[in-house]
Amino acid sequence: MNALCRVPASVAIQGEAGAFSHLAAQQLFGKKVELAPKRSFDDLIDAVTAGKVSHAVIPVENTLAGSVQGNLDRILDAALHVVAETRVRIRLSLVAQPGRRLEEVRKAASHPVALQQCRGFFKANPSIEPVAVYDTAGSIRDLMSGTVEYDAAIGSELAARIYGARIILPEIEDGRENHTRFFAVSTSPGKAPKARAKTSLAFVVIHEPGSLYRALGAFAERGLDLTKLESRPIPGRPWEYRFFADVRGNPEGELGPALESLSELCSELRILGHYREWGGP
Amino acid sequence: MNALCRVPASVAIQGEAGAFSHLAAQQLFGKKVELAPKRSFDDLIDAVTAGKVSHAVIPVENTLAGSVQGNLDRILDAALHVVAETRVRIRLSLVAQPGRRLEEVRKAASHPVALQQCRGFFKANPSIEPVAVYDTAGSIRDLMSGTVEYDAAIGSELAARIYGARIILPEIEDGRENHTRFFAVSTSPGKAPKARAKTSLAFVVIHEPGSLYRALGAFAERGLDLTKLESRPIPGRPWEYRFFADVRGNPEGELGPALESLSELCSELRILGHYREWGGP
Repeated sequence: MNALCRVPASVAIQGEAGAFSHLAAQQLFGKKVELAPKRSFDDLIDAVTAGKVSHAVIPVENTLAGSVQGNLDRILDAALHVVAETRVRIRLSLVAQPGRRLEEVRKAASHPVALQQCRGFFKANPSIEPVAVYDTAGSIRDLMSGTVEYDAAIGSELAARIYGARIILPEIEDGRENHTRFFAVSTSPGKAPKARAKTSLAFVVIHEPGSLYRALGAFAERGLDLTKLESRPIPGRPWEYRFFADVRGNPEGELGPALESLSELCSELRILGHYREWGGP
Repeated sequence: MNALCRVPASVAIQGEAGAFSHLAAQQLFGKKVELAPKRSFDDLIDAVTAGKVSHAVIPVENTLAGSVQGNLDRILDAALHVVAETRVRIRLSLVAQPGRRLEEVRKAASHPVALQQCRGFFKANPSIEPVAVYDTAGSIRDLMSGTVEYDAAIGSELAARIYGARIILPEIEDGRENHTRFFAVSTSPGKAPKARAKTSLAFVVIHEPGSLYRALGAFAERGLDLTKLESRPIPGRPWEYRFFADVRGNPEGELGPALESLSELCSELRILGHYREWGGP
């Protein structure tokens, strides 16, 4: 089921068609999603706040690398609403021009993070040199244009299909437990679902010992499950932190009074969005 | 006062002499610290675990950018001990060959993060093009070697002094509240100080609702102040998190029983180190 499949949508992603953000957008909006590729996360946010697209799909955390730093701040600063979440397993394939064999490959290009996640492959194939470029899908597109100095690239199966590259070796990534979580964001809030509701919020606790403990008590005392807690610096206030949290619960249920209690312990509280917890494609 | 000035020390840093890590090492070990510059954080950790240096000085967080991702994991994975902390205000100067004037500058090089923190300067001087290189101090060293395509660089006053560059404009960074926190790490633990003791630890709570809340209660119920809490993914266990925390307190005081309570709520608990809270140079 596509969480937002009834919404006609044009969706901005960071990176080229075939990027893992494209896979995330397909999971959320259907295979035929109308895509607007953007060079940077700032361009992505600008596109949705300016109304040039209905949504942006933006990565927020990876199970190996951790938080995609700055993206939750970007959503908060732009006053965007989180309307859906999804998760994509990162499967990296070695691809090349059709006909090319593994023994012939000399240089394989991809995004630095993807290269780092294929350390085992490069160790097992010491004659292949890694080449860092700005995007996984972009490395495959540029490889197929024939104007680059590398003769292989590493990226998604989807990108291989889009640009007509041949997969020489599938799933060359080191860890199978490599997943990225994405949010769909929009200028309009989503509706809290009746079932499997999740809420993302940002808060700054009053500056005194034990304040974070008491803030989490607002959820724990009502049996609400905190699935994620992340701290970020507050610009201009050194060594003070804003917390981003994800909580299972519906504002019409126990979450409502929990948020009321929490607000009394905070100098700032913002709901980023209510959405349905991702349960698989 | 230099926290560790009585220890004869050779200290590894990431980056060249004159990097902000060099300033941190001077604050902790004195101006004449024997420096071992390393290319990457992994090389830095290797140098100290192999006994090639007595300490490494490593950045862990910045008040604008947030956590230096992966460095707490590196300390934990290498079973190193945190023996001191310090903080450095990031002041960025535009420097050039002696005699060169601001009006003549066409290209200014630095680390991408430093360039980003000088957006106001580049906006006010649109004829100067930013050039991204791998290190702030390295950009000044290479500028003075005369073999590069840029005619100015952005880095610390210390680097300007070391490489004989002239400061054209001091403090061109956008925000004055730009500080980086560093740890000194070693293969041997430090001794918990009697006064201003701080403790860094890593823990994984038992996987059930409210467990983080109860874990923080071990400190809050004893009036112990949590100064930092950070979550990191656990490789191989998607969507589970390890927490890194800093707490004010001495293990001979209330912190001892707090850690005992905490251990009962955790599947993993590691003390990274006890050290004196940084109170200024």
